[in-house]
Amino acid sequence: MTRIQDLDTPALIVDLDIMERNLQRVADYAAAHSLRLRPHTKTHKSILIGRKQLALGAAGLTVAKTSEAEVMLGTEVRDLLVAYPVLGAAKVRRLVSLAGITRITVAVDSLFAAEHLSQAAEAAGVRLGILVEVDVGLARVGVAPADAAELCRNIQALPNLDWRGITFYPGHIKNQDEEKISALSATVSGLRDALVRAGLTPEIISGGSTPLLWRSHEIQGVNEIRPGTYVYNDLNTVAAGACALEDCAASVLVTVVSTAAPGRMIVDGGSKTFSSDKLSGGGPGHGRLMEAPGAYFHKMNEEHGFVDLANAERSFTLGEKVRIIPNHVCVVVNLHEYVYGVRNGVVEEVWNVEARGKLQ
Amino acid sequence: MTRIQDLDTPALIVDLDIMERNLQRVADYAAAHSLRLRPHTKTHKSILIGRKQLALGAAGLTVAKTSEAEVMLGTEVRDLLVAYPVLGAAKVRRLVSLAGITRITVAVDSLFAAEHLSQAAEAAGVRLGILVEVDVGLARVGVAPADAAELCRNIQALPNLDWRGITFYPGHIKNQDEEKISALSATVSGLRDALVRAGLTPEIISGGSTPLLWRSHEIQGVNEIRPGTYVYNDLNTVAAGACALEDCAASVLVTVVSTAAPGRMIVDGGSKTFSSDKLSGGGPGHGRLMEAPGAYFHKMNEEHGFVDLANAERSFTLGEKVRIIPNHVCVVVNLHEYVYGVRNGVVEEVWNVEARGKLQ
Repeated sequence: MTRIQDLDTPALIVDLDIMERNLQRVADYAAAHSLRLRPHTKTHKSILIGRKQLALGAAGLTVAKTSEAEVMLGTEVRDLLVAYPVLGAAKVRRLVSLAGITRITVAVDSLFAAEHLSQAAEAAGVRLGILVEVDVGLARVGVAPADAAELCRNIQALPNLDWRGITFYPGHIKNQDEEKISALSATVSGLRDALVRAGLTPEIISGGSTPLLWRSHEIQGVNEIRPGTYVYNDLNTVAAGACALEDCAASVLVTVVSTAAPGRMIVDGGSKTFSSDKLSGGGPGHGRLMEAPGAYFHKMNEEHGFVDLANAERSFTLGEKVRIIPNHVCVVVNLHEYVYGVRNGVVEEVWNVEARGKLQ
Repeated sequence: MTRIQDLDTPALIVDLDIMERNLQRVADYAAAHSLRLRPHTKTHKSILIGRKQLALGAAGLTVAKTSEAEVMLGTEVRDLLVAYPVLGAAKVRRLVSLAGITRITVAVDSLFAAEHLSQAAEAAGVRLGILVEVDVGLARVGVAPADAAELCRNIQALPNLDWRGITFYPGHIKNQDEEKISALSATVSGLRDALVRAGLTPEIISGGSTPLLWRSHEIQGVNEIRPGTYVYNDLNTVAAGACALEDCAASVLVTVVSTAAPGRMIVDGGSKTFSSDKLSGGGPGHGRLMEAPGAYFHKMNEEHGFVDLANAERSFTLGEKVRIIPNHVCVVVNLHEYVYGVRNGVVEEVWNVEARGKLQ
């Protein structure tokens, strides 16, 4: 029996009870509101967790990269969305070969990208699904809502593509922005109506972001959501009001390696363990010490975490192991090869982060 | 023949001419000043580059983690410094087994850590070298200079340890801080004299940081340096005044994946490709576009780079590939599986980042 404290550090720990509750809660929410749930696997990057999501009723999975799609084939997913405007001959060839195995849908925001996908699909004798990405205000990818119908129509005309609908990502809207949420709902339902009037009835309107997760059913027209972070949650999700602190399933176990000066300690995790992501609201610190939330994890070098103990609830000794809940779990997972799943402090499962560092 | 533009993206590119010049320049500097050069491999994390450093006369190599030490055995290094206060039974066992293969020296700042290393070395019948880490002002790891002699003496008394000297890291001192550099020199030479008077003549006084690299010979007493970043350099090294922009060997090739709105473009690299490290001086932006330095890489999501083109020297088209010099190359390399070495735009060598993500 391996207990948490027996693990070498740094180690990424996931509390299985919390993770299972997180997975179930979102599955229940989606079912209650008749929303197709298509979890974004960029957070966990693991086949095992993708399989758990599918077993709980997910209609498919989402990935950001072609290489992530290749990994997630291992889940035996039947409907895989590449929520990214894939460009480039090599990637398009790889996508098309995946489309011979499972249903692949790609989110695009240009006719240029769609034409290349169409040509490659035609050459390979396969079909690709397409969602048109619409910019609802984040100013990242996506066409303006007013331009969506024209792009959808042009894509419908291309061979070997199945236009399936639209997708958007409201990453700029906070959970409490009532006006922006109302405006988003008006934009999306207006867009749906315009498409229907134009004879372009979307099968899928895919939306949602972690902060807005629980309000997805209020966005008129949305029938699919793609949350990612909910599986583990993190301090950003807490700050966004989309989960409570006790819903954070992931933490990093680190060792106190230096107490050379009073009032501070150094732990064996820095920016190569936690990433340098700050809290998305701009708050201070790099994570929350579970053993002493008053300790201030204020600075990192690559392999050193600097913890100020001035307001810590307790003291720490050399060699002691402590757990830190990270700001942004998605980038943390991407730095770790393995995840240690624990229940009641005992390691029950260890899984690989198969899509770690899959960039292309 | 594969040219840069043929590579899929994101891809980490290293200009071999620049890298070779960087390696040679520091080897020459160390030789000119009779400094032992012990490059820190945390920047490149690659066996091939470690071998190149040894071939150019490096006296040994440095690593931060036990797992990095295991990887760097592949270079056939004869003298390996683990510049980190290694704690924990599992890691100590692994270090001791490495010490049966090559000479291993560990930097410690506590008698507690040294005692554990001593016991494990004695049990295994091997010897471990020890450097005592001294804090010269960064307030990270290290004992106060006044406490160094006592710790050195106590370590000398422990079985199976060879006390070899002291080490420090002046990461808080900038290249232009003349007063701090003078004070550092006084601290180090005073410490050396005190040790010698106490009958503790250090074989090694290991110092240096990238910003202070070229001033290492001015720190009285220092006879070894451990630079890491110099192999590739980055915008931080430029900002520190320790290299010129044309000495930056590493860049990330990315593809323009969205030009949906005028005045901006999105490239296919974000925080999982570049890390979120800001310029250490606190400057804006996440990297410098080689094709248009006026373009402003101002924001990242995990897989999206946001580039503002308002002041760009040229426009860009969908599918075009551009190169971006990163802020902090050490954390970027750790996110990439392969490095593409190019000369005159042609890929000449591809090497693996074997120690990528080696955290324990």
